[in-house]
Amino acid sequence: MPRLSEAQKSERRERILAGARRCFARHGYEGATVVRLEEEIGLSRGAIFNWFPSKEELFLALAARDNEQLHQVLAESGFEGLLEAVLEHEPDWLAVYHEFGRLFRTDPALRDRWKSVSSDEARESSLAWIASGQADGRLRRDVEPDEIARFLGLVIDGVVAQRVFGFDAPRKGLVLRLTRDAVRVQGDGEVQVSD
Amino acid sequence: MPRLSEAQKSERRERILAGARRCFARHGYEGATVVRLEEEIGLSRGAIFNWFPSKEELFLALAARDNEQLHQVLAESGFEGLLEAVLEHEPDWLAVYHEFGRLFRTDPALRDRWKSVSSDEARESSLAWIASGQADGRLRRDVEPDEIARFLGLVIDGVVAQRVFGFDAPRKGLVLRLTRDAVRVQGDGEVQVSD
Repeated sequence: MPRLSEAQKSERRERILAGARRCFARHGYEGATVVRLEEEIGLSRGAIFNWFPSKEELFLALAARDNEQLHQVLAESGFEGLLEAVLEHEPDWLAVYHEFGRLFRTDPALRDRWKSVSSDEARESSLAWIASGQADGRLRRDVEPDEIARFLGLVIDGVVAQRVFGFDAPRKGLVLRLTRDAVRVQGDGEVQVSD
Repeated sequence: MPRLSEAQKSERRERILAGARRCFARHGYEGATVVRLEEEIGLSRGAIFNWFPSKEELFLALAARDNEQLHQVLAESGFEGLLEAVLEHEPDWLAVYHEFGRLFRTDPALRDRWKSVSSDEARESSLAWIASGQADGRLRRDVEPDEIARFLGLVIDGVVAQRVFGFDAPRKGLVLRLTRDAVRVQGDGEVQVSD
């Protein structure tokens, strides 16, 4: 078996991930059989599972990538950017998340693996974005950054659910406006900018 | 076949619905086979499907019931009551909704049937609750009642998704507080109480 250069290895890995993503989106998580993965990726199962030991690991690698990207979008473009990113994802792909998520309740080990795909670094960058918004008076300071993150996550999960079920995507402007009012400084707007 | 009195008919219908709900919650929508429905309900398939022509109709009848109840809770106990009701539902039962919802994207006719199970009357009572909140200054008036309803629905769908995936239910107080701030009168609180 010929040795692959580092560049070839990286290319191979990307090719497998891109094909797996198309396959999951087209057939769902359960429907993405090994035969279909081979067809969509254009490699044999031996070649595929040499890189990723299982279908589960393939999906988790894709999820880790999405997760990092979304945290980065929040840190760079705020909640509006995050909402746009989620509205741009194909419903077919979002549905794979729902299908995979169904396995969590009965498989706590898998749920922990899922939590771990959101790297601490990415998560820290989101919390830092929130903390800086609190410091400069854009975001409320009477709840912890982690709680603001949880609430934003709830809204995003609601948008994902509605898109997965094929309902009209909620109007971006509306979600943005009400969510901002939920997390901005409350009351008469008096803010201590000092820390 | 002996004729059933009206009371017996009603009792039979309730027994079928209660058994079907247990069966769906235990085995999931897909896993609730005819054999399992027979076992859980304690009636033959002939007796069951005499009342509900299909598994789909059985689920829709249960969903219609939940839907009416949730609209009623909102009208009577506000968003806090609605949130509590959703937090009290078993995750196993909520998961059936997710599983059923997956069919919507590929089956628009089913999605329309689903929409129709939320009776206009129940929906109107929720919109009336919102409009009355706007009139008496509890809720913001710069967005339509229907848009407030959509935003509340988004938050609820986010809570349901997190529970279906087996994550810790979000803290009720937090969700309540931030959601209220999203939909209450904004700015300096100046409200025209007249209308």
